[in-house]
Amino acid sequence: MSPTRSATIVVLHAESGGTGKPPATDQIEALGTVRYVTEDGLTDALRDADVLLAWDFRSQTASAAIERAENLRWVHAASAGVNHLLSAGVRANDVVITNSRGVFDEPMAEYVLALVLAMAKDLPSTLRLQHERRWHHRESETLGRSRALVAGTGPIGRAIGRKLTAVGVRVTGLGRTAVDRDPDLGSILPTERLAEAAADADHVVLAAPLTDTTTGMVDAAALAAMKPTARLVNVGRGGLVVQDDLVAALRAGEIAGAALDVFAEEPLPPDSPLWTMPNVIVSPHMSGDVVGWREELVALFVDNLTRYLDGRPLRNVVDKQHGYVREGAR
Amino acid sequence: MSPTRSATIVVLHAESGGTGKPPATDQIEALGTVRYVTEDGLTDALRDADVLLAWDFRSQTASAAIERAENLRWVHAASAGVNHLLSAGVRANDVVITNSRGVFDEPMAEYVLALVLAMAKDLPSTLRLQHERRWHHRESETLGRSRALVAGTGPIGRAIGRKLTAVGVRVTGLGRTAVDRDPDLGSILPTERLAEAAADADHVVLAAPLTDTTTGMVDAAALAAMKPTARLVNVGRGGLVVQDDLVAALRAGEIAGAALDVFAEEPLPPDSPLWTMPNVIVSPHMSGDVVGWREELVALFVDNLTRYLDGRPLRNVVDKQHGYVREGAR
Repeated sequence: MSPTRSATIVVLHAESGGTGKPPATDQIEALGTVRYVTEDGLTDALRDADVLLAWDFRSQTASAAIERAENLRWVHAASAGVNHLLSAGVRANDVVITNSRGVFDEPMAEYVLALVLAMAKDLPSTLRLQHERRWHHRESETLGRSRALVAGTGPIGRAIGRKLTAVGVRVTGLGRTAVDRDPDLGSILPTERLAEAAADADHVVLAAPLTDTTTGMVDAAALAAMKPTARLVNVGRGGLVVQDDLVAALRAGEIAGAALDVFAEEPLPPDSPLWTMPNVIVSPHMSGDVVGWREELVALFVDNLTRYLDGRPLRNVVDKQHGYVREGAR
Repeated sequence: MSPTRSATIVVLHAESGGTGKPPATDQIEALGTVRYVTEDGLTDALRDADVLLAWDFRSQTASAAIERAENLRWVHAASAGVNHLLSAGVRANDVVITNSRGVFDEPMAEYVLALVLAMAKDLPSTLRLQHERRWHHRESETLGRSRALVAGTGPIGRAIGRKLTAVGVRVTGLGRTAVDRDPDLGSILPTERLAEAAADADHVVLAAPLTDTTTGMVDAAALAAMKPTARLVNVGRGGLVVQDDLVAALRAGEIAGAALDVFAEEPLPPDSPLWTMPNVIVSPHMSGDVVGWREELVALFVDNLTRYLDGRPLRNVVDKQHGYVREGAR
């Protein structure tokens, strides 16, 4: 079946790096007229375009350009989180937003397990001591039978829940809706009960979308509720955490450590105290980005573009009011 | 039932550290006359002793003292590996050797997973870049569907096999006897076929006992057979690897990296090139040593001591010719 519509597609990419021009663009070019732009050229390029591939998922100005693009019908985000695209104007208009749900699940779950294990086994100290050529035996922690709270009940949170359960961690979930027995997350408590749920956990893992409800959910009160031996892992969005409260809680010994892959401001500014805090691991928003991920993202977009041109339903349509793909959606 | 024999028990411990005097010694003292000695005093202390608890498992001279101890009937090692105790003289005489099989299985399996994941997700580079306050995004590897070869089919190797399988790694075993379908290790190839088995693996994990057959098994030929993208993890004994061959293979790029918890000489000498090689993680023989491990080791010895005094069969009796507890043994 050949495509029944034609389309002008704008690809928003960064100058360079992982969000520089995507690979395998011939697959996109075979399906329509393609314009490649960076942030500066976006408004102009969108003037008569039908489709935007938001490959540079870090762009802060894309939503303003999308609001002004009168012919734009569909925006596909090369990311799982789409909070950066959902301005009030974008929520109110008719443009369809899809995301890259699915591509990052397993890689991110593995990354979370790597961080949880690295902290339990004190690997950062081991590497520091190695650098000093010092042989200093220590005791480490057992992961089996410890408790994790996983905030986020989308496919990423679920993959994390399954991965931690597979190595013997007892998992509880935190999400918009309470669930008694979830196959991946055990029982799920509602987001409002974070402090209560966190009190029990050895690991608090954030994989929630950034929405009005979740912004700043990990604040001083939530951190104070955590055990002093517990650690925080954030692979969701920086805005889930009140960063100053986290720094204060770490300094006060209210929690034992944190592994952060996402930050309120990215790249994390050089003067952030997080870079040099003991018991903090800082990584550069890379948890889902395994070898081959860019090709997978392009393949997902090409599949959706074919559906668009054929007039078939798109995959991963974001509920713009909730800010993520709702359960049961394609 | 009260004990039917009495015993003089010598506890060999180090001056300090993890192998310094054991905890909860009142449990041992309740069952017999106990003498605490370090290496220097061992021969004298053993003169009329019945039982030796080799708590300092790093002692290099204990086997000579055991050979000379005419009344000694039983030696319990606070370790899984007992290669250091099995001199020709000890093998030839009647003294019974038991080990601490079981205590280390799960902690070591978790430690191996931590090392494998840390290398796949490039955590050492992340921590190095963090130290320099540099935000440098990289792609990392997927663990799921990768292949591991686990050398060692005892309880530690089996726990490692189960742990890696649980996170989606395809596991093959390597052991004394070939097995078609093993529940923990898939198919097990005989040790002689190491090079062939290693050629397929992304992770080669060593958890074998150090015996005449396994000493130096990972040599230049085995390393050359590995994929240039593959990595070596050693939590067994340093002597399983020809260390100079490993250094040469790493320098030549024949393998991608190594995570080593055990070494031919421990502590690893400060002038060893391994300390500073890129893509090498050096840790101080701590893979099995989780919080509470020393108490568990004492509990195991006390259980065995009660059996000894009652004249019941001991747990974890080592086959002195093979160098480990044979399958099916108690």
